[in-house]
Amino acid sequence: MQAIRIRESGGPDVLELAEVERPAPAPGELLVRVKAAGVNRADILQRLGRYPAPPGVPADIPGLEYAGVVQEVGRGAAPWRSGDRVMGIVAGGAYAEFVTTDPRHPMRIPGAWTFEQAAAVPEAFLTAHDALHRAVGLRAGERILIHAVGSSVGLALLQLAKAAGCSVAGTSRTSDKLTRAEALGLDRPVLVRDVFDPEVDLQSWADVICDLVGGPYLAGNLAAVAPRGRIVVIGLTGGRSADIDLGSLLRKRVVLVGTTLRGRSADEKATVVRSFVDGALSQFEDGALRAVLDRVFPMADASEAHRYVEANRNFGSVVLSWA
Amino acid sequence: MQAIRIRESGGPDVLELAEVERPAPAPGELLVRVKAAGVNRADILQRLGRYPAPPGVPADIPGLEYAGVVQEVGRGAAPWRSGDRVMGIVAGGAYAEFVTTDPRHPMRIPGAWTFEQAAAVPEAFLTAHDALHRAVGLRAGERILIHAVGSSVGLALLQLAKAAGCSVAGTSRTSDKLTRAEALGLDRPVLVRDVFDPEVDLQSWADVICDLVGGPYLAGNLAAVAPRGRIVVIGLTGGRSADIDLGSLLRKRVVLVGTTLRGRSADEKATVVRSFVDGALSQFEDGALRAVLDRVFPMADASEAHRYVEANRNFGSVVLSWA
Repeated sequence: MQAIRIRESGGPDVLELAEVERPAPAPGELLVRVKAAGVNRADILQRLGRYPAPPGVPADIPGLEYAGVVQEVGRGAAPWRSGDRVMGIVAGGAYAEFVTTDPRHPMRIPGAWTFEQAAAVPEAFLTAHDALHRAVGLRAGERILIHAVGSSVGLALLQLAKAAGCSVAGTSRTSDKLTRAEALGLDRPVLVRDVFDPEVDLQSWADVICDLVGGPYLAGNLAAVAPRGRIVVIGLTGGRSADIDLGSLLRKRVVLVGTTLRGRSADEKATVVRSFVDGALSQFEDGALRAVLDRVFPMADASEAHRYVEANRNFGSVVLSWA
Repeated sequence: MQAIRIRESGGPDVLELAEVERPAPAPGELLVRVKAAGVNRADILQRLGRYPAPPGVPADIPGLEYAGVVQEVGRGAAPWRSGDRVMGIVAGGAYAEFVTTDPRHPMRIPGAWTFEQAAAVPEAFLTAHDALHRAVGLRAGERILIHAVGSSVGLALLQLAKAAGCSVAGTSRTSDKLTRAEALGLDRPVLVRDVFDPEVDLQSWADVICDLVGGPYLAGNLAAVAPRGRIVVIGLTGGRSADIDLGSLLRKRVVLVGTTLRGRSADEKATVVRSFVDGALSQFEDGALRAVLDRVFPMADASEAHRYVEANRNFGSVVLSWA
């Protein structure tokens, strides 16, 4: 089959279209023909050699989410049938014509969605739903601050928080992204210049902070969080190390949680998927939630797609398509 | 009345016995005649000028816990009667002949305890019970690591964790304290020389870590905590600032919580007390829990008691007595 391979660690140009061996589904697994795959920050880190794939996953093919069609159903891989339209997360290898997956991990693609729309959903919405509803236990009416609100995960967090009846502040370095996020329900746009350093009226404001930036934002987060508030760190695009003032953590009785989907066990991922399907997927059908698809690139242009995401030009998801 | 006053911020000698105004109970409050008061690390920080008393509390009289006798019952301060033997936490001022208190905060002293024994219970056991059962939700069979296990809070944590069916590791810089903690059920003594730096067999071991040291132990805690483990920081005797590797926090999906009792609202403290009385107090009567009373000093020797605690010589609680 064809796939995008990381020739060696480095810049966007190390991505190349190559002929590789098609993966063989183990007993009980599905083989899915990939039609479109989402581009995530983690793919860029993997390309740079800073986020190696876990065992059992192709080391040199990036891609954490796909949309496609079930090609082969292993014994016991109920309830799927060949030809079903599915979308889902994998631990790597989605920039390819085929992926194999645990049958508990895909979700049925609702109604009339294109594969490109569907490929924009799994990573962003599963990450966001798990962070809000499992890691921090979001409650209706809470005040929530979302960093990098214009990213695919940021926009999923925004929509899920609004759907849960929360008041939402969001940060971005690009004012245009804040304007567009307001159209999706953002109550309080916060333009960040260098690092996040909350103004007086945002100090001790947030019951919940969802952070995709990491290290450089931690001090600002401890200032912005309300007493007994929760900070969930989902991404580290700004770096992984930080100084922490444990005095603030104690005084405000803050809960700081780290979370990531990729390294979880197959059972845990199945639970995350089931919780999202039961709790949120129907809200796509009635229009309360929608994937924000910024741009589709042909799969062969993966390098260009990476350049585009690295330049922070996307508002929402960037997707690669075999079509 | 007489009280121990902090003449000015400084060493143990700034504590002096003085004649001060007796506090007047507000409507609905109790006035308690103090017989004994516990000495806590926070008292030393307050004496040094590094932990000011919250509003509404005497700024210059230390003391966060007492045992004594109800002297006066304000209107509505049910269910207490004059003469009741009580113990409890206050936000300051317990090194005195009298304290006033919200009537929901004292606990009845069980059976035949002396006031000195009773004064060793409230701060240590309420802090420990709240940290384990409310901040981190300890579950039977979990593995728990307690730093400074020979301190009064450390020994309360140890006993509560053993009573909950947990396996307990504990650190100390003094091997004699570890030997004595083993007699109280400690499964795994860990002698610390400089900072906590877990051996290979303790890495990713602990489902729950209770930390009274703070800053310098954070890196070791992130190494010792198990995937999905919780770290609760209860004290900062080692310092409040630290470098944190958020990469570990994400990869292991760690929950880091800060907690402190002193700054909480009266309602919150009432909840903490009720939860402890309902969940644990009866275990003192059947002997599963006991206050570990290291040494009693006359109230007039508060300076000497502080010197003793600052030199880390105590195993368990140090108490000041008016007797």
